[in-house]
Amino acid sequence: MISNKRSEGQTVVVAMGGHAFMQPGQRGTHAQHVANGRMICHQIMTLVERGYNVVITHGNGPQVGELLMQSELTRDQVPAMPLDVLVAQTEGSLGYFLQQSLLNELRARDIRRYVVTVVTQVVVERDDPAFAVPTKPVGPFLPRDTAQVRADEFGWVVCEQDSRGWRRQVPSPRPRKVIQRRMISEAAGAGHIVVAAGGGGIPVVKAENSDDYVGIEAVIDKDLTSSVLATDVGADLLIILTAVDQVYVNFGQTGQVGLGAVTLAECERHIDAGHFPAGSMGPKVEAIYQFLLRGGSRGLITSADKLPAALDGQAGTHFIGKI
Amino acid sequence: MISNKRSEGQTVVVAMGGHAFMQPGQRGTHAQHVANGRMICHQIMTLVERGYNVVITHGNGPQVGELLMQSELTRDQVPAMPLDVLVAQTEGSLGYFLQQSLLNELRARDIRRYVVTVVTQVVVERDDPAFAVPTKPVGPFLPRDTAQVRADEFGWVVCEQDSRGWRRQVPSPRPRKVIQRRMISEAAGAGHIVVAAGGGGIPVVKAENSDDYVGIEAVIDKDLTSSVLATDVGADLLIILTAVDQVYVNFGQTGQVGLGAVTLAECERHIDAGHFPAGSMGPKVEAIYQFLLRGGSRGLITSADKLPAALDGQAGTHFIGKI
Repeated sequence: MISNKRSEGQTVVVAMGGHAFMQPGQRGTHAQHVANGRMICHQIMTLVERGYNVVITHGNGPQVGELLMQSELTRDQVPAMPLDVLVAQTEGSLGYFLQQSLLNELRARDIRRYVVTVVTQVVVERDDPAFAVPTKPVGPFLPRDTAQVRADEFGWVVCEQDSRGWRRQVPSPRPRKVIQRRMISEAAGAGHIVVAAGGGGIPVVKAENSDDYVGIEAVIDKDLTSSVLATDVGADLLIILTAVDQVYVNFGQTGQVGLGAVTLAECERHIDAGHFPAGSMGPKVEAIYQFLLRGGSRGLITSADKLPAALDGQAGTHFIGKI
Repeated sequence: MISNKRSEGQTVVVAMGGHAFMQPGQRGTHAQHVANGRMICHQIMTLVERGYNVVITHGNGPQVGELLMQSELTRDQVPAMPLDVLVAQTEGSLGYFLQQSLLNELRARDIRRYVVTVVTQVVVERDDPAFAVPTKPVGPFLPRDTAQVRADEFGWVVCEQDSRGWRRQVPSPRPRKVIQRRMISEAAGAGHIVVAAGGGGIPVVKAENSDDYVGIEAVIDKDLTSSVLATDVGADLLIILTAVDQVYVNFGQTGQVGLGAVTLAECERHIDAGHFPAGSMGPKVEAIYQFLLRGGSRGLITSADKLPAALDGQAGTHFIGKI
């Protein structure tokens, strides 16, 4: 196995968006999911070749939206499953795309490591303020009338997004505990490549009248879950892959500057100055910031394309915590 | 932890049908899936309490059929995914139902063991004769006209089933290798309760022009996959849960006799005499027979209800291989 002694045995959590499986303008066909999954796994192999223990997390926005649309359109013919079950379905399908590609990459390189996808539940709190104010848009864009009917009939919260139409908004509570954390940690520590916490994890809460966990209709932010998981597994590095090569301050304004490396203290100042908007870079920077605050050592935000260069200090935005 | 020294540290693979989540006559709503999953997990806890390492497999016939129906009905609005991806989706959702119930059962008993669902690929052979003669009915019942249109348009093989209508038939190739077998074995050996190979596993084959694995549209028999997996993980016992309490010879005829225990040799004689029809008990008995032939020690066919009694030698059909 090719390896780099500096990273040998270190653990990395690498997060990618559900949009990573769809290039801009693509419909998200099966062939596109396979091809894009293959490309991103090819880049992730850089981490494997350098000897890292690798945990991969992913979003599922477009995919869970498609399942929700199918579910809505066939409601009269097929019993509809709630959102937590649809998240579980995307953990299966996207995990399969990733593990198939990774397996093939490993075989092509004759690297004897294994890949496993772990269906992952994540505990959230029933009294999380997010349940009072659903903010995460999911599913298809609907005409205003249809959205209103659904809101009346099913109690949905709906909102107009862009000029494209109305969407259902679901709560996005904060992740509190990754139930399978020990299993994920053990598998990664044994050298297996682990796909986990897909879609931010399947949201569950404590039942009201017992100690049981029950599913709840919500979508957890995958970057925040990745941050919690990175701490849980004792990761040395949390990488968030996104569409842009690095993070900027004064983005799209006078004084726009790409950040090469920032300390925890600098990161905090940039957050306080409002440089990272909630709808885009905000949750990603916060995810890494929280990881470093809890004692994490390193964070990195970059694109899949630039990942190999970023690992050589040639690209991306690096976040420096406790050495 | 409550334990029974005789089974402590032994490994059991226990297989259940996708119909286990739906009682006869039920539509398969979410509430029904949750309630039935909970009941079956309650029975499976008997194995945990006796100290077995437990690997759980399950079918997905009704569930993958529903996804296929949703996919067909929304083909114009949502990109359709092939059957291997739909199988992966059911591994996510049914794995979630099972692991949630098991987790709650463990918590209620204060047993400190973990539950994990492993998304599982299973290798089949491209030249398996099953690809020439699709025999496994999946998806919804269709009117004859619609079935014929689909057959012409998509190259489906369709057949009339019962008097309920026409269904698509897909190939059901034999399972050759469970890709995640080592991971499953390690996790079970560490005492985790593992849900694996759902729906018989996601069928993959070697690509024609490379060493890559690629998905293929098929559904693998979950009992045969469970048999292969039982050998892979060195299981001491393979249990197949089904709707009836035990296996019969001369079923429904003069001389019907329930089998309490049979040796490998007796089992072979019953198979040769044609006592186990292909559509019902055949694959289950064959799965256990093959497991014993490969050196397995014990097999058991019974219902979930009778599982605790069967473990005490009071119910079920027991198959005796190498001691």
